[in-house]
Amino acid sequence: MLSSDSSQMIGSSIVLSDKEQQVNDLLMNYKLKEYDEGFNNPGNFLPAVNFFKSKSKIEQSEVFNFIRKLPKGASLHSHDTASVSSEFLYNLTYSDNLYGCVTNERLQFHFFSESMVDNVCKWKLVEQLRQENSSFDDFLKTQLTIIVDDPVKVYPSINDVWSRFMQTFSTLSGLLTYRPVFQSYFYQALKELYEDNVMYLEFRGTLPDVYELNGTIYKAEEVVKLYIDTLQDFKRDYPNFHGARLIYAPSRNVDNETVDNYVVAATKLKELYPDFIAGFDLVGQEDLGKPLIQFIPQLLELAKTNIKFFFHAAETDWIGTSTDMNLFDAVLLNTTRIGHGFGITKHPQILQEVKSRSIAIEISPISNQVLKLVDDLRNHPGAFLIASGYPVVITCDDPSFWGAKALSYDWYMAFMGLSSRESDLKLLKQLAMNSLIYSAMDEEEKSDTFIEWEKQWNQFLEDILKKDVFMKYFGCCSVNNIK
Amino acid sequence: MLSSDSSQMIGSSIVLSDKEQQVNDLLMNYKLKEYDEGFNNPGNFLPAVNFFKSKSKIEQSEVFNFIRKLPKGASLHSHDTASVSSEFLYNLTYSDNLYGCVTNERLQFHFFSESMVDNVCKWKLVEQLRQENSSFDDFLKTQLTIIVDDPVKVYPSINDVWSRFMQTFSTLSGLLTYRPVFQSYFYQALKELYEDNVMYLEFRGTLPDVYELNGTIYKAEEVVKLYIDTLQDFKRDYPNFHGARLIYAPSRNVDNETVDNYVVAATKLKELYPDFIAGFDLVGQEDLGKPLIQFIPQLLELAKTNIKFFFHAAETDWIGTSTDMNLFDAVLLNTTRIGHGFGITKHPQILQEVKSRSIAIEISPISNQVLKLVDDLRNHPGAFLIASGYPVVITCDDPSFWGAKALSYDWYMAFMGLSSRESDLKLLKQLAMNSLIYSAMDEEEKSDTFIEWEKQWNQFLEDILKKDVFMKYFGCCSVNNIK
Repeated sequence: MLSSDSSQMIGSSIVLSDKEQQVNDLLMNYKLKEYDEGFNNPGNFLPAVNFFKSKSKIEQSEVFNFIRKLPKGASLHSHDTASVSSEFLYNLTYSDNLYGCVTNERLQFHFFSESMVDNVCKWKLVEQLRQENSSFDDFLKTQLTIIVDDPVKVYPSINDVWSRFMQTFSTLSGLLTYRPVFQSYFYQALKELYEDNVMYLEFRGTLPDVYELNGTIYKAEEVVKLYIDTLQDFKRDYPNFHGARLIYAPSRNVDNETVDNYVVAATKLKELYPDFIAGFDLVGQEDLGKPLIQFIPQLLELAKTNIKFFFHAAETDWIGTSTDMNLFDAVLLNTTRIGHGFGITKHPQILQEVKSRSIAIEISPISNQVLKLVDDLRNHPGAFLIASGYPVVITCDDPSFWGAKALSYDWYMAFMGLSSRESDLKLLKQLAMNSLIYSAMDEEEKSDTFIEWEKQWNQFLEDILKKDVFMKYFGCCSVNNIK
Repeated sequence: MLSSDSSQMIGSSIVLSDKEQQVNDLLMNYKLKEYDEGFNNPGNFLPAVNFFKSKSKIEQSEVFNFIRKLPKGASLHSHDTASVSSEFLYNLTYSDNLYGCVTNERLQFHFFSESMVDNVCKWKLVEQLRQENSSFDDFLKTQLTIIVDDPVKVYPSINDVWSRFMQTFSTLSGLLTYRPVFQSYFYQALKELYEDNVMYLEFRGTLPDVYELNGTIYKAEEVVKLYIDTLQDFKRDYPNFHGARLIYAPSRNVDNETVDNYVVAATKLKELYPDFIAGFDLVGQEDLGKPLIQFIPQLLELAKTNIKFFFHAAETDWIGTSTDMNLFDAVLLNTTRIGHGFGITKHPQILQEVKSRSIAIEISPISNQVLKLVDDLRNHPGAFLIASGYPVVITCDDPSFWGAKALSYDWYMAFMGLSSRESDLKLLKQLAMNSLIYSAMDEEEKSDTFIEWEKQWNQFLEDILKKDVFMKYFGCCSVNNIK
């Protein structure tokens, strides 16, 4: 009965090679030590602690360091302007020509070629603001993320944290849509993924207007071109990185006419850049925005093209509300993947559909925790999905806003918090493979990418074992568990 | 797809009569108002708030008052000395001859016929302690429950709250095992259930030694007789109450020899009181106590008799630990129901077994919240079980210790927090029927009880509609939703 149970877990069909088994022994040595320490001191178990508090401890975890090195395949759910580490983001605020002003207690940024007179907002060079007021920089830092010391107190409800979350996007808009920053930001997002051993990216983008100091404005079509140019630069510098695609994902909180325009724009973008545009989605707090059902005629129109859907759905704790019903519309619209799908375990029919149609659920554990859907990640619905072998990929959503970086933090949560004490390298390997299997790549590209990934995987095994042998003979720590 | 989804929910096969439909319209009027107020002010949604804070607001809920009146059938999971309201418990501390003393910062109680000299603990009459120290009564109150103003701070981890929880059982032991109190306590437990429109009880009892002032000690067999005598008194006073049965459930935190003794005791008790003894279980914090697998020979011995098992299993957030593995042993030992089974959604094979073998899961939402398995009850695994039509009963565990009373508070949580916005009277009716279906009664008794319950149900419908008509014509509030 036990084996029939565990044989349904993601990764259970994998048979580890001898080399993988050796690496797994090392991994499980780390995992069980950390897991059992958590069991003995439940208040310190990191997936049960708010990420704002657990982050620095995760970085000391051997399991986390193992996961960072592991070739994780693809990152399939992140947002354009919340992708890079907060350190990089902060450094951008030292750019030349960057102005700031405060309206409604929120900082706004913009680049100007010369001083700007504005009746609404008194723009000053950020450099000058820093000189005039020694506490300005501390204030500025609070505007770049949603990190706070006491999240329980500062964010009593989901609407409070979402309000701050949306404000942060707004704060960063003028900073990140300056063309040189826009491109270096995207380059950095790719670099951080690459350094985290991620080889491929599919990201949601709203395609905002991008501007130059001289007044030039790039519209959606040109913005896509900026992405593609940057990607080409990046691939020239890092030839091992496989590539990236954009899921065009504008705001859901709009009227029907605007969605008509989205359809026209998406269709045109796909025609212009058939390879780079992966598909379409709508973004914004589902609970407060418009459900998919309000835009069915437009979405059916779009479905006639070769654009795939990657809908956010049921990023909610409210069962039976319109947010929750997005699951049904997403599936009926033949979505390729589902963003979050947090409510899915409350819908047996949807569970059956995603399994039979191989619709992957994009799980972003840290996002769901800090945005207040669930506190203790052991109660995340993904634990059911992983245990029962549903199509799942682990994603990072908006790492920039909570001080994470790339994908490994979320993988750590999936491995330590959303799966059994016994889950091992097989789960991690399958999650990596899932990220390629459920990507928007066509079959030929998938198979090429899979070959690249396997090379990385074998190199990873070698590196781990080499390091381990080194540690045994010359290092500080004995590792007893090698066969 | 929607109807195929909702047709799997508990209660979905029920077709409401016209009268039931009218009552349902009233209920849903209350529910949707309250649910949507929660949606608009998520921080105030009661199933998402710690019960210590939400209790007084629940008592103002129209949904809660409706549920209190509804004939709920049976209460199938509660513990002997944590059953009554804390008000009744507090009043017991004014009993004559009750002494108290403090050891290790915890109050102990005992009844003595005259003043008692004890080197360990300086016993004084509780009456005298109250007179000597004006703050004593406040201290005493803190010892009767686990209620605190700031649970997040006072109970940083599950082990902290469990420690206090176990201490509370210990504090109350000398108070409640005094024979007259023991009997009046049980009588009161039945009365509170009866007043909450519960007709039948199956409760866990450790069968502690019970004492008289003159030194007489009643051992397990005689203690059962005390229960039976009290039950007979109660049924004489309240002939509509159907009855009660005991699940003999001593501590799991013992050695093998003690479990050998349990087997002998349980067998003898079942022979002596075949009707009153429903079965066997083991109690205590599973994470720290012994798993079932340690006592397999003894339990197999017991399985040869006609004693049914009602095992606690997987009352835990830790997947893949021995606590979690209790699920497998419970099912393999052919358990009749599972207490908590909180980890069950992480075990697809167990999910399949409980469905095919009709093993009911006893869900105690408030217990799981205050004992720190889950904060927001919308993330309770029971939400999956209810949505997917698993055999579920709603239970109250230890209402005395968190200021609840009888069964309605937990039913409220199941209805508002563990099920869809759309779930209605059909769910509540099925939960009531489930409590009879999955009880330990034999088929004939079940069918008799079901007839009694149906009478209560029809009376309930009449009462609700009568009250509603009255309210419409003479009362304060318009009810628009009557057909």
